[in-house]
Amino acid sequence: MTHKIAILGASGYTGAELVRLIALHPNMEIVALSGERKAGMRMTEVFPHLRHLDLPALCRIDEIDFSGIDLCFCALPHKTSQEVIRDLPRDLKIVDLSADFRLRDPADYEKWYGNPHAAVELQKEAVYGLTEFYRDQIRAARLVAGTGCNAATGQYALRPLISTGVIDLDDIILDLKCAVSGAGRSLKENLLHAELSEGYNPYAIGGTHRHLGEFDQEFSALAGRPVRVQFTPHLIPANRGILATVYVKGDARTIHDTLAAAYADEPFILTLPFGEAPSTHHVRGSNFCHVGVTADRIEGRAIVFAALDNLTKGSSGQALQNANLMLGEEETGGLMMPPLFP
Amino acid sequence: MTHKIAILGASGYTGAELVRLIALHPNMEIVALSGERKAGMRMTEVFPHLRHLDLPALCRIDEIDFSGIDLCFCALPHKTSQEVIRDLPRDLKIVDLSADFRLRDPADYEKWYGNPHAAVELQKEAVYGLTEFYRDQIRAARLVAGTGCNAATGQYALRPLISTGVIDLDDIILDLKCAVSGAGRSLKENLLHAELSEGYNPYAIGGTHRHLGEFDQEFSALAGRPVRVQFTPHLIPANRGILATVYVKGDARTIHDTLAAAYADEPFILTLPFGEAPSTHHVRGSNFCHVGVTADRIEGRAIVFAALDNLTKGSSGQALQNANLMLGEEETGGLMMPPLFP
Amino acid sequence: MTHKIAILGASGYTGAELVRLIALHPNMEIVALSGERKAGMRMTEVFPHLRHLDLPALCRIDEIDFSGIDLCFCALPHKTSQEVIRDLPRDLKIVDLSADFRLRDPADYEKWYGNPHAAVELQKEAVYGLTEFYRDQIRAARLVAGTGCNAATGQYALRPLISTGVIDLDDIILDLKCAVSGAGRSLKENLLHAELSEGYNPYAIGGTHRHLGEFDQEFSALAGRPVRVQFTPHLIPANRGILATVYVKGDARTIHDTLAAAYADEPFILTLPFGEAPSTHHVRGSNFCHVGVTADRIEGRAIVFAALDNLTKGSSGQALQNANLMLGEEETGGLMMPPLFP
Amino acid sequence: MTHKIAILGASGYTGAELVRLIALHPNMEIVALSGERKAGMRMTEVFPHLRHLDLPALCRIDEIDFSGIDLCFCALPHKTSQEVIRDLPRDLKIVDLSADFRLRDPADYEKWYGNPHAAVELQKEAVYGLTEFYRDQIRAARLVAGTGCNAATGQYALRPLISTGVIDLDDIILDLKCAVSGAGRSLKENLLHAELSEGYNPYAIGGTHRHLGEFDQEFSALAGRPVRVQFTPHLIPANRGILATVYVKGDARTIHDTLAAAYADEPFILTLPFGEAPSTHHVRGSNFCHVGVTADRIEGRAIVFAALDNLTKGSSGQALQNANLMLGEEETGGLMMPPLFP
Repeated sequence: MTHKIAILGASGYTGAELVRLIALHPNMEIVALSGERKAGMRMTEVFPHLRHLDLPALCRIDEIDFSGIDLCFCALPHKTSQEVIRDLPRDLKIVDLSADFRLRDPADYEKWYGNPHAAVELQKEAVYGLTEFYRDQIRAARLVAGTGCNAATGQYALRPLISTGVIDLDDIILDLKCAVSGAGRSLKENLLHAELSEGYNPYAIGGTHRHLGEFDQEFSALAGRPVRVQFTPHLIPANRGILATVYVKGDARTIHDTLAAAYADEPFILTLPFGEAPSTHHVRGSNFCHVGVTADRIEGRAIVFAALDNLTKGSSGQALQNANLMLGEEETGGLMMPPLFP
Repeated sequence: MTHKIAILGASGYTGAELVRLIALHPNMEIVALSGERKAGMRMTEVFPHLRHLDLPALCRIDEIDFSGIDLCFCALPHKTSQEVIRDLPRDLKIVDLSADFRLRDPADYEKWYGNPHAAVELQKEAVYGLTEFYRDQIRAARLVAGTGCNAATGQYALRPLISTGVIDLDDIILDLKCAVSGAGRSLKENLLHAELSEGYNPYAIGGTHRHLGEFDQEFSALAGRPVRVQFTPHLIPANRGILATVYVKGDARTIHDTLAAAYADEPFILTLPFGEAPSTHHVRGSNFCHVGVTADRIEGRAIVFAALDNLTKGSSGQALQNANLMLGEEETGGLMMPPLFP
Repeated sequence: MTHKIAILGASGYTGAELVRLIALHPNMEIVALSGERKAGMRMTEVFPHLRHLDLPALCRIDEIDFSGIDLCFCALPHKTSQEVIRDLPRDLKIVDLSADFRLRDPADYEKWYGNPHAAVELQKEAVYGLTEFYRDQIRAARLVAGTGCNAATGQYALRPLISTGVIDLDDIILDLKCAVSGAGRSLKENLLHAELSEGYNPYAIGGTHRHLGEFDQEFSALAGRPVRVQFTPHLIPANRGILATVYVKGDARTIHDTLAAAYADEPFILTLPFGEAPSTHHVRGSNFCHVGVTADRIEGRAIVFAALDNLTKGSSGQALQNANLMLGEEETGGLMMPPLFP
Repeated sequence: MTHKIAILGASGYTGAELVRLIALHPNMEIVALSGERKAGMRMTEVFPHLRHLDLPALCRIDEIDFSGIDLCFCALPHKTSQEVIRDLPRDLKIVDLSADFRLRDPADYEKWYGNPHAAVELQKEAVYGLTEFYRDQIRAARLVAGTGCNAATGQYALRPLISTGVIDLDDIILDLKCAVSGAGRSLKENLLHAELSEGYNPYAIGGTHRHLGEFDQEFSALAGRPVRVQFTPHLIPANRGILATVYVKGDARTIHDTLAAAYADEPFILTLPFGEAPSTHHVRGSNFCHVGVTADRIEGRAIVFAALDNLTKGSSGQALQNANLMLGEEETGGLMMPPLFP
């Protein structure tokens, strides 16, 4: 049986990435693509790399007949997403890729995003989309909130360690190296090739990045008490990839064993041998996340690394993985392509 | 039915690319991987991006039992390849990715490669592997010679024009822009990131590039008389891609129509609307080739563009496409993944 | 004696490049910097790499007192430049980096730029700024028009060949490979790092690039009859550099000797030994232009290469070289820094 | 008065960088360049970007007459350097860029470098070359040991904080992002453009990087008791630059004020306003180091950033700065060129 799929906001990178992935899915068919500012254009004009596919033209959301659609991906900007989803049919399965339904508490949402939430009831209903840790709820969900790409990377490095208590919860530092596609298709000077390539820099310094809201929510829930981490992202001249270097206090071998055990049966989260570190080179374009652990020379300190592709495992791949669960498909459907290297 | 596949020379880029593609093929299984200098190592050590796959370890060629193997890809260096293939079982289907069997005439081979051919009989038997133009012979072949990646790109731009005679055969200029993976995993100073990135330059200038042997052979055969082209490759700071800018004399509309007609039913060769030019961005990691034509402002001159990924359509993807034909599989099996963008 | 310098349009790349160069000039002092949209900001905010310099803040043009200024660089957008320069004091020395005064014929200007010229008298007065060929006129000029960066590169490869008649004037093809800073600080999707890096493509195809106006004007004047060339630029994922690959018909040795003789005494134009090709890697950040010649394998055909840095020799370095002449300074003042490699 | 300069090991990146810098120095002249494996070649063949300079050809070290030389830069590999310097004239001023004389204690040297030191007496005599902190000793020195590039970056972020005691000495984490030229001109697969670009990864993890020897020596001496830091370097796809993100415990404002005061009169170390972070983009090709401080959202934690160009301030620029002091020149001679951006 082929599921009918709509993608709202298909003119951005996560929308295009969904199309790329679904093109290889055995049981999904894209029947509607929206893009408000580019409505009327063919996808080939917006993304010529999809030229070989037979896709619907971009339309406005209000032109879509949702009655025949099985699942809708929302790849819209933050804030817009909640307003659109609020007005969609109540029985439509939705995977949202924006930040709008990640935080369960309306006050948290307002604190990090600066505006009151426009769909508080839906916010309560939404399931947090970190597949490996919310699998059963996602299977049963109507609305799944895709995680932040940085938030996903940090959680793959830390969740099993926090829930088992093998690290000091009060001294966790996440130093993230993020590729540029995470910023989306935004027209900003610092994202131009001339300004971004050949150098790198931190941004959102001092604990101001919005994905901290997700870390706080999830880690505190796991620990059963408030957990606050340090998190500094850096913009790196590459297009895809997030590398988390996580400094923790605890026994490195125990930390490695805890992660290896937690991910032993996971198809997409691969734990490297002790003492090895991952590279974003080795996950590009794929849905895999590589996790590694090393001991520092200083007793009692360990470093946990996690690497994934922000557009795939950090966003659209995660979304498809969740959609597979919601539709009763194989969880790995359309997602087993190897990374592209070189 | 699953075909048993061997890949000789699996520690280079074209070998790894074959593994990447075959991983998604419904009816192929890799049962042997050779790598003389890295024999004994696991593929994960040599190519950590393939970590999620269950692959045989690298071995020496003489350790492989070819009796159970249906088809063997040879991704060995030039010259080594002919010596190895000469000693393989006579009934083994082989797709060679080296330059060793591309030229039919032993004298041509020696002229361009500097040594006498070590397997002249096989050279005669080999079918030239430009799928779209040798489809029937490839289907029946035992030994197929993969084309040069630059040679493939130039031929997609020119073959239908030469065979129909719509351009001046004595004034053809190919200016190629080549990404670095075409040079393979060679340890040379000019291929280091520090020396290659941020700049670009011509190489093999003045009509000295070996792929000219293929152009001469193929274009002359098509025209029924000697055809010699100008060809200047340039090394560009990108990892995948070849862009051919081909300057010809003839009527641009006729040229476009000729190409569009020639490729109308091809699954992988896509002709753009008249006046549009392709980009290597839009074919990366895929088996597609985009072809475009524009008229110059000077009457009677046209420019033909062709863009493909040298590792996929220019090499390993082409090889798999040919293997599909040789094994009675769908020609497109394992090859329909969309390009990776961004 | 220190000359007082103003730079209009200092918030773009050519403006910043002028500041970089003048910082090392022994006899120039920047006293005014304009930037309409960023007026009031310090240069450090706009270009943090200039943090160590003591520079005036950005202001509006109408805030500048030109009475104490010896020379004014105009790095404003096309069309704006002519309107601003029209209203500047008549005795102020000006080096314009825009396209506004490159074409002497108002009809040519309108043909290529789409609007009537707003300062036709000044257009007549302006001297074309290709230093090596207009040195005496520049020394005496009040208003010098900086050349297009592509136009400069092509002319270094071709002018001595056209004026001596050693090549066929009716069959000249310029295939240019251009780095991205030539597009300026424009916010366009195709200039984003995510979309530009890792691939490349032709643009302004078919003889539509505006720098053809300069080629037509200059080459025809040199030849004493109309000369029209083919010119196809390509956008390459690098920040600085233009490489011209010029296909001509003529004797390669004669061509090389002609260029070597023409540039024998030039401080910035270096002719490579016969058969060697230049690389943009080796001119980055410098005012040098490397020129090379090779014979093709086809008798009577040659390829001329020229490589320079579009922001330096192609634009701001050229402008400073001209300013030096206009102010009676050493022509090479502030311009002898070696290229940056790697 | 012009000082006669020799550079040993001129065929590597730091050697070429010295030539680039000295080319602009008013009072230095290069009279000898050595390169054992490339002896007899002209520098233009090895580094075509230096084509415009009139330089001596590469020779073997034993061909150099040191009697007329005022100062010798040694840009040789580790271990070779100590053996060569041991045999140089005792009265020759030397700036060594290798690791051989950085550690004062022979046991420390052997621990980090794996072999006994071959010139223990010279090791004692050598002055550590971090100019801003050893200025007087360097002025009087005969042999100065250039620092590690990572070691320099970390020390600019931390030395004033450790000597004043404003941070917790037992909890210092340095997360470094390093460009590839720091690895030199080594032919390694992971340094190839095809393998390095488009991704990034940590290396020398777990406290195994040799520059830790310098941190231990210097920080412990400053504190008057053992100080051991955590240090994890990451390889980033860019050619020049080191960015240190340093996690410390202490009052962020006090930390900022301490650094600002320490560097108030330094020509090359610039402290950014509180809350701003530097970028390697803004120091490329220059001798400047930008230092920034922010408070984390967690009380009592601060993040210190330092950015410099590893080949300039981290190596050859530092070496020239020291040579200036040793020769009685202006400390900034040949070093005031602004960064190259974009």
